[in-house]
Amino acid sequence: MGVEALPRTIAWVAQDGADGVDGAVVRLVEQRELPARLVFWDVRCVEELEDAIASLAVRGAPALGLAGAFGVCLAGVELLSGAGDRRHGSESGFDAASHGAEAFLGALEPLARHLAAVRPTAVNLAWGVEQALGAVRAAVVQGVSARTALAHAIAQAQELAREDEVANRAIGAYGAALLPDGARVLTHCNAGSLACGFYGTALGVVYAAFEQGKLAHVYADETRPVGQGARLTMWELTQAGVPCTLQCDGMAASLMAAGKVDAVVVGADRIAANGDTANKIGTYPLAISAAYHGIPFYVAAPTSTVDASLPDGSGIPIEYRDAREVIDVEGFSPDVFNPSFDVTPAALIAGIVTERGVYEPGEILQALSL
Amino acid sequence: MGVEALPRTIAWVAQDGADGVDGAVVRLVEQRELPARLVFWDVRCVEELEDAIASLAVRGAPALGLAGAFGVCLAGVELLSGAGDRRHGSESGFDAASHGAEAFLGALEPLARHLAAVRPTAVNLAWGVEQALGAVRAAVVQGVSARTALAHAIAQAQELAREDEVANRAIGAYGAALLPDGARVLTHCNAGSLACGFYGTALGVVYAAFEQGKLAHVYADETRPVGQGARLTMWELTQAGVPCTLQCDGMAASLMAAGKVDAVVVGADRIAANGDTANKIGTYPLAISAAYHGIPFYVAAPTSTVDASLPDGSGIPIEYRDAREVIDVEGFSPDVFNPSFDVTPAALIAGIVTERGVYEPGEILQALSL
Repeated sequence: MGVEALPRTIAWVAQDGADGVDGAVVRLVEQRELPARLVFWDVRCVEELEDAIASLAVRGAPALGLAGAFGVCLAGVELLSGAGDRRHGSESGFDAASHGAEAFLGALEPLARHLAAVRPTAVNLAWGVEQALGAVRAAVVQGVSARTALAHAIAQAQELAREDEVANRAIGAYGAALLPDGARVLTHCNAGSLACGFYGTALGVVYAAFEQGKLAHVYADETRPVGQGARLTMWELTQAGVPCTLQCDGMAASLMAAGKVDAVVVGADRIAANGDTANKIGTYPLAISAAYHGIPFYVAAPTSTVDASLPDGSGIPIEYRDAREVIDVEGFSPDVFNPSFDVTPAALIAGIVTERGVYEPGEILQALSL
Repeated sequence: MGVEALPRTIAWVAQDGADGVDGAVVRLVEQRELPARLVFWDVRCVEELEDAIASLAVRGAPALGLAGAFGVCLAGVELLSGAGDRRHGSESGFDAASHGAEAFLGALEPLARHLAAVRPTAVNLAWGVEQALGAVRAAVVQGVSARTALAHAIAQAQELAREDEVANRAIGAYGAALLPDGARVLTHCNAGSLACGFYGTALGVVYAAFEQGKLAHVYADETRPVGQGARLTMWELTQAGVPCTLQCDGMAASLMAAGKVDAVVVGADRIAANGDTANKIGTYPLAISAAYHGIPFYVAAPTSTVDASLPDGSGIPIEYRDAREVIDVEGFSPDVFNPSFDVTPAALIAGIVTERGVYEPGEILQALSL
């Protein structure tokens, strides 16, 4: 019981007890098994990690950032050991014995690009890939070996995991300060510990308020079609001992009308320069309902979620997923509209809570210049 | 293919080929089997009908009205044959051989009250019960036999079924006139032929527009937790040949933002005197989203749905259902908020389409005085 008892969602486990250059796995909470049981998945190669990402065994924007960084490291371990080439036939053209860091980078880049494209909406996956790759690039400039370059990438990915937790605790503290005493918070999807390395963004706000004794209740949208709210948010809130109630997405407005919601707090998958925010499908109507009832709607996300290259939300790529996520009845295959994300306009957002403070949506770029 | 090929949702089938006083079943489409297969359920006694209603094998406000009326008739058949007493021990105190219509009415009334209370939100169930019971009461005044009183009740219930279809076709015609050419209509739950005896209310509007060649597309909310939109609306639209797409409830606002929705049309379970409307949970946030996007939101329902005794929607009783409709995972039983209906305030409703014409919500009582 308690927030601190929650499992690490994604971790680098070195098989030699050292940094993992000679062998490592990425240990994931297998989120498709929740809430029935807590199972870990030791991912051994980058293709397996891509499967885990595509199948939503690991999901959540900050967790995808860590998956991107650790995935590049896993690809690097494979290249150095020749395991990938042995599995697939010699494809990379990289020979660990004779080639240096530059050839290593050249072999790593296409693998990294492929990994970054597995899910398009969350900016964090590509961002995490880029962070690990950046460490290799810096190593190339320093003229070190491929092995040392990989060690730098691993160190960088581990640092991102530490920063993730620090950022989430800061988001929690900034967000909790926005809530009234006895706050009843409504959330959507899972922007919790299971969406990050640890602690959570939107649920980080919840946990911080809970630890301060000012949180009365959390209402969690089930979040169709995949049910991250019903399965993941309700599971981790229950584990952490936070009082919580589950409702279907279409029931949230009834709770608001009944005066049972003081604030809505959600995560984000990508935030455009003007504050428009992509998040799990169903977030946008929640923001509209909150505005109609005069309830503040907050987005909680690390600054790594901000995509300064996009002036507004219209440029955010939206992932469309399989119809069978929505309906799977043999002999009945209707046309299905299944976007995984929607875009909430900045005008409906009361504040964006980051690890650097709370920003008006239109001023979110200021968070990047600190 | 085609609207006319849709099955009758609920029908009185007399076993002797006559009016059914000596034996009848209520033949229902078993809606829990859809969309996988079309199965009929021949209901033989009022307790079985109550099970069918409670389990949502038959549902939809107008269909519940017919179920109420036919259910009273079924109870009457049982009383006259003594079947109910033989099944339960002699409870009714009614002896068909020696007692008249007044004793028949006295025995029927507690059975009717019990039936009317199986589901509380839709006014139509109690209304249908009262219609059949009223025919028996009128027969008592006329001094006829119990057998003749039952025949009057059956005739009244059959008349309601005829009126249901006539009303739905009128609703369809009035509603279709509100839509633009090439209309894209979004709907919630199932206010279709499967929610009535035949043709539908909200989908009656769709079918009329389709038959006039002015309907381009229907977007159907899946309607969690029971999935009436995914299972029933998509099935009957597909059967009728109407172009349609399914989306999760939280995706409707994205369709609106993309400019793909010209009107929202839904049914109703109870309409208060001021036009506040109870309908399937998830209707209210849809109305809020429609208002935010400037899209007209119409309620389509027969005037029997209006409850003039309630000044506004705050007095409408809301049914709460089992948590396992929302989540059913062994060993994980979180607290669940599961109201089956919500109330949309009149201010969000562009018009109420009845069999007598289209009314401003605040003027809906005028429809009753015609």
